[in-house]
Amino acid sequence: MEVSNGIIKWVHSLAQKKNRDRERCFVAEGTKCVFDTLGAFRLRGLFCTENWLRAHNVERASVVSSVQIERMSMLKTPTEVIAVYEMPDYGAGLSEAVNNLNLALDGVQDPGNLGTIIRIADWFGIRDVYCSMNTVDVYNPKVVQATMGAISRVRTHYCDLPGLFHSLKDVPVFGTFLNGCNMYEEELDSKGFIVMGNEGNGISPEVERYVTKRLHIPSYPAGGLTSESLNVGMATAIVVSEFRRRMI
Amino acid sequence: MEVSNGIIKWVHSLAQKKNRDRERCFVAEGTKCVFDTLGAFRLRGLFCTENWLRAHNVERASVVSSVQIERMSMLKTPTEVIAVYEMPDYGAGLSEAVNNLNLALDGVQDPGNLGTIIRIADWFGIRDVYCSMNTVDVYNPKVVQATMGAISRVRTHYCDLPGLFHSLKDVPVFGTFLNGCNMYEEELDSKGFIVMGNEGNGISPEVERYVTKRLHIPSYPAGGLTSESLNVGMATAIVVSEFRRRMI
Repeated sequence: MEVSNGIIKWVHSLAQKKNRDRERCFVAEGTKCVFDTLGAFRLRGLFCTENWLRAHNVERASVVSSVQIERMSMLKTPTEVIAVYEMPDYGAGLSEAVNNLNLALDGVQDPGNLGTIIRIADWFGIRDVYCSMNTVDVYNPKVVQATMGAISRVRTHYCDLPGLFHSLKDVPVFGTFLNGCNMYEEELDSKGFIVMGNEGNGISPEVERYVTKRLHIPSYPAGGLTSESLNVGMATAIVVSEFRRRMI
Repeated sequence: MEVSNGIIKWVHSLAQKKNRDRERCFVAEGTKCVFDTLGAFRLRGLFCTENWLRAHNVERASVVSSVQIERMSMLKTPTEVIAVYEMPDYGAGLSEAVNNLNLALDGVQDPGNLGTIIRIADWFGIRDVYCSMNTVDVYNPKVVQATMGAISRVRTHYCDLPGLFHSLKDVPVFGTFLNGCNMYEEELDSKGFIVMGNEGNGISPEVERYVTKRLHIPSYPAGGLTSESLNVGMATAIVVSEFRRRMI
């Protein structure tokens, strides 16, 4: 199949969120990222160089030149394969969610942090991650890559978090705050939402209203002079690990 | 004080490890990073623009032009202030170390990961981090920045880890392995070394010989299909948090 200039431009246009949202498509680049996601999403196109196809036995690939794939690519380092997928439609999944432990992200901005958080969710068996509308897009190519394949198993939902919590009555909502209670001494539920906030500002006042238990990761020794705070990825790792420890 | 071309080149040369090692100096760039480190290390030079000096009341600053500071800088984004510090000489600190909980890093390569690990050490009151000689240099400008000031409080030592462990008899050495024992069910000491391995290869065979307890961070549900592994920064956060939880 000959790949037209129009297709090349279309693939490259998916670097931008507004185009992804309009086309309902996103991109995975590079051998590892493609194999980590192939089969998990509906494939719209698989573009690779002839060299790459010779080394990897895949079906449905369109061979393009190195120059063409470079024009499609969003990464700085050159790649030999790009997959275009349709965005999955998970629905809100709320009937399940209320019986599970979920993550809610309130304005996480950094693609690497979101990728890290999706990996943590995957490791600790959290199936659903609810993101505020101002959280970075999970289909941003940097996020897709940073999830190291975990995006194939964890479902993300973008929604209005205060509205979500308002509609779910009697579901525990946990948040971490510098002045929260020592997480290790609190009772933790095996279902509900763990909210993680924005890198600079933490949890927004609108979401904080719905937090039913305020937690804190104690530093050591208590009250010592340390960093102002843990990065949101590290904090997520520690908090989710503690919830799961109680459930084993 | 007029800042010569020679000084500008000298500062810029500190981007490279071999020059840092020869000069025993390193650099902190940007307002936050400079204020996070000022006072913690012996200052060799503080270079800033006139604008910056007007906004920040500091002593001992040398005013340079924007063009000059850009030539000194190692970062992509332009900065207005650069501090040059002498590397501290902490000694090996071993007599203290044997009575404390320490981290040992066996070939951690990524500057961001090392920065993250130093922040975790700081948060959880781990004073000493022992790095294998092939671990990325903590005085790499990217690492200095990624520590968010924690480099001012955590002491790093570069040494031959097998030699170190050989010399310290009867000190517990913990390592994480995919086939280790469930960390939550094991007895954990309040002193010794927690070894974290290389991003791709984990702990080297030479260091593994000295590991006295093999730990594993259980995924959830046990035996489920998840990411191959957690990133070394996340794993460090979870493991160190669990050691400290036992000590509270």
